[in-house]
Amino acid sequence: MEKRKIYLDNSATTQTDEAVVKEMLPYFSDIYGNASSFHSFGREARTALDEARTKIASLLNASPEEIIFTGCGTESDNLAIFGILSAFGKKGHIITSKIEHHAVLHSCERLEKNGYEVTYVDTDKSGKVCAEDVIKAVKENTLLVTIMHANNEVGTIQPIEEIAAGLKIINKNRKDKIYFHTDAVQTAGKIKLDVEKLGADLLSIAAHKFHGPKGIGVLYVKKGTNISPIIFGGHHENGLRPGTENVAFAKAMAKALEIADADMQEHNKYVFRLREKLKKGILDTIPQVFINGSGENSVAGILNVSFTYIEGESLLLKLDMKGIAASTGSACASGSSDPSHVLTAMCVDPIAAQGAIRFSMSYKNTEEEIDYVLSVLPQLVDSLRAMSPVWQSKKND
Amino acid sequence: MEKRKIYLDNSATTQTDEAVVKEMLPYFSDIYGNASSFHSFGREARTALDEARTKIASLLNASPEEIIFTGCGTESDNLAIFGILSAFGKKGHIITSKIEHHAVLHSCERLEKNGYEVTYVDTDKSGKVCAEDVIKAVKENTLLVTIMHANNEVGTIQPIEEIAAGLKIINKNRKDKIYFHTDAVQTAGKIKLDVEKLGADLLSIAAHKFHGPKGIGVLYVKKGTNISPIIFGGHHENGLRPGTENVAFAKAMAKALEIADADMQEHNKYVFRLREKLKKGILDTIPQVFINGSGENSVAGILNVSFTYIEGESLLLKLDMKGIAASTGSACASGSSDPSHVLTAMCVDPIAAQGAIRFSMSYKNTEEEIDYVLSVLPQLVDSLRAMSPVWQSKKND
Repeated sequence: MEKRKIYLDNSATTQTDEAVVKEMLPYFSDIYGNASSFHSFGREARTALDEARTKIASLLNASPEEIIFTGCGTESDNLAIFGILSAFGKKGHIITSKIEHHAVLHSCERLEKNGYEVTYVDTDKSGKVCAEDVIKAVKENTLLVTIMHANNEVGTIQPIEEIAAGLKIINKNRKDKIYFHTDAVQTAGKIKLDVEKLGADLLSIAAHKFHGPKGIGVLYVKKGTNISPIIFGGHHENGLRPGTENVAFAKAMAKALEIADADMQEHNKYVFRLREKLKKGILDTIPQVFINGSGENSVAGILNVSFTYIEGESLLLKLDMKGIAASTGSACASGSSDPSHVLTAMCVDPIAAQGAIRFSMSYKNTEEEIDYVLSVLPQLVDSLRAMSPVWQSKKND
Repeated sequence: MEKRKIYLDNSATTQTDEAVVKEMLPYFSDIYGNASSFHSFGREARTALDEARTKIASLLNASPEEIIFTGCGTESDNLAIFGILSAFGKKGHIITSKIEHHAVLHSCERLEKNGYEVTYVDTDKSGKVCAEDVIKAVKENTLLVTIMHANNEVGTIQPIEEIAAGLKIINKNRKDKIYFHTDAVQTAGKIKLDVEKLGADLLSIAAHKFHGPKGIGVLYVKKGTNISPIIFGGHHENGLRPGTENVAFAKAMAKALEIADADMQEHNKYVFRLREKLKKGILDTIPQVFINGSGENSVAGILNVSFTYIEGESLLLKLDMKGIAASTGSACASGSSDPSHVLTAMCVDPIAAQGAIRFSMSYKNTEEEIDYVLSVLPQLVDSLRAMSPVWQSKKND
């Protein structure tokens, strides 16, 4: 019997959709010109790139010239943060939250080393940043606010519109506009992103989180934003990101976002059902487990569960042996033995944080897969807890 | 009759090889895990990434941990330059040449703005930098030398080994090692790159210049090099380049380099014959043309020709109407009306520089294509010169 393989780590990356692969294929060996070349081969490539840019712009309610292709979500975040600050040409204050992705947090740490001041706003127990806290943190020298749209570990959606509205009022009376960036890597393709409605000046997305390929991202940059490149070379991407354009992946990313957008409601309903089924099944069969994050105000596919008195990594290994792929948190932080900075910020009890597992579902998962997970999970948890002396003394509490 | 389409702009980018496309395909929808994830999906991806890294390392005579995947050649150049200087943590002096790619030149210009001192070494008339000039330019506060392996507009190969040898002697008596970077984007897949033999500490290559996909590059970083990342996030790529790994393109790049390496001598001989045929044909049939760059000491596929008394752009348009794709210089500098900085550095007469065209050939071109170009080129040049009053007065000189 072939071993089961169940992929419940869709927040780390997703399977590239067959239609997306089909979309990119002509741009390798057929239409292969350099989109910056002035001949028919180049023009064909430029046309395709323009199509991709226009489609993505339209899906985000942006203009094509506001769409900057990058190499990944991390690069988009870095371009937003360092690009804005570099254009200011002076040091100042940045506001972010304690639960951002490392692409933002490590950038902020670097800025602190370079003499910038950073405020890391707290979250509540569900992992939600309070818009008022962000607005209250504004200082005279604040240059940039960067708050993610939804957290990658627990899925909690942040009040981006509210923060944008607060900053808009403050900006009316300031000489230097405070720019607002949101890392929407976890929401693109899952929540309808309307940049006008969200009100952010900059927004990062990455194709591989919505069944597009790994190796391409977009930074939306609102018209009129004063931003500098962070990599130097040619004049590609509106002067903001040099390097020969990756037309194949741009087309693929546009296709992936189009597919995700078209089926969003249906997929969300379906994925939500899978999550609730998994959640209910776990809560019904395994004692002393806790759900991290707000189930209601979060992206549909993420279920973060704390199995107390075990190590999350040990459970992952056991799950992996059963063919089930999940994670303890961000793949980008793999290899680190520190407890999750997100759960720590949410004041999750250390014993619970230690045993946290993120299951992240996509519409490509099935109910039957969830049944299988539920059929093996209680026993795996049991076997690990059996080795814990603390559990032995606590289990009857 | 279908219009001819002849691609002679292989220094701008190349057609992705069918075998290379085939190599990447399994890593979109089949093996799609995040290479940083600790489950079977992740491990499969990691294994593939390791294979790609090991293959590229082996082809460059490097160790796998010395191979850093990036998003493009421009990013590799930027990582080398800013990464080395950032690790020094102090300002100082950089040596480069006047004929570098804009990825290097614009980085150096940015450094000058930030208080660094940059020496731009001259070239001789063939576009060759003199190693002695580089060594003589070293100052007490020199931190980095960056000289390209071969120029992208004229193909001239630079004395990298000689420069490395000179720096090695100087480094013996210095507290701070002077690091040496070479942009080998135009030579990878065309000249055997042995990092030990070349002696550079850092070397940039980009897959799309040797029939790999656009959107992936490599920076070779010699073991022991003190270098910092320029983008911040996860711990990918030995801590030097965060972002979910693009396994599909890493595999593709390794395959493309392997193919290029296996057939290098044969391809070079063939491409050289095409270039010589084109050169001879042009010199035999069109008066007052000049070849820019050294034919002998250059990459086999680049022929840069000055058609005096015409505008290169006008000739490109005429060629394009005949289905022939060439360029006036770097695609990355397209849109700029400035004369080529490379030809200017080579002291090419402005009238000749203005009429310069780069034909860049690959093994995928045919003799018959060259015949076709030669059958239409004289008439195109004639028709443009007929519109030039200066030509009318000079043609009998």
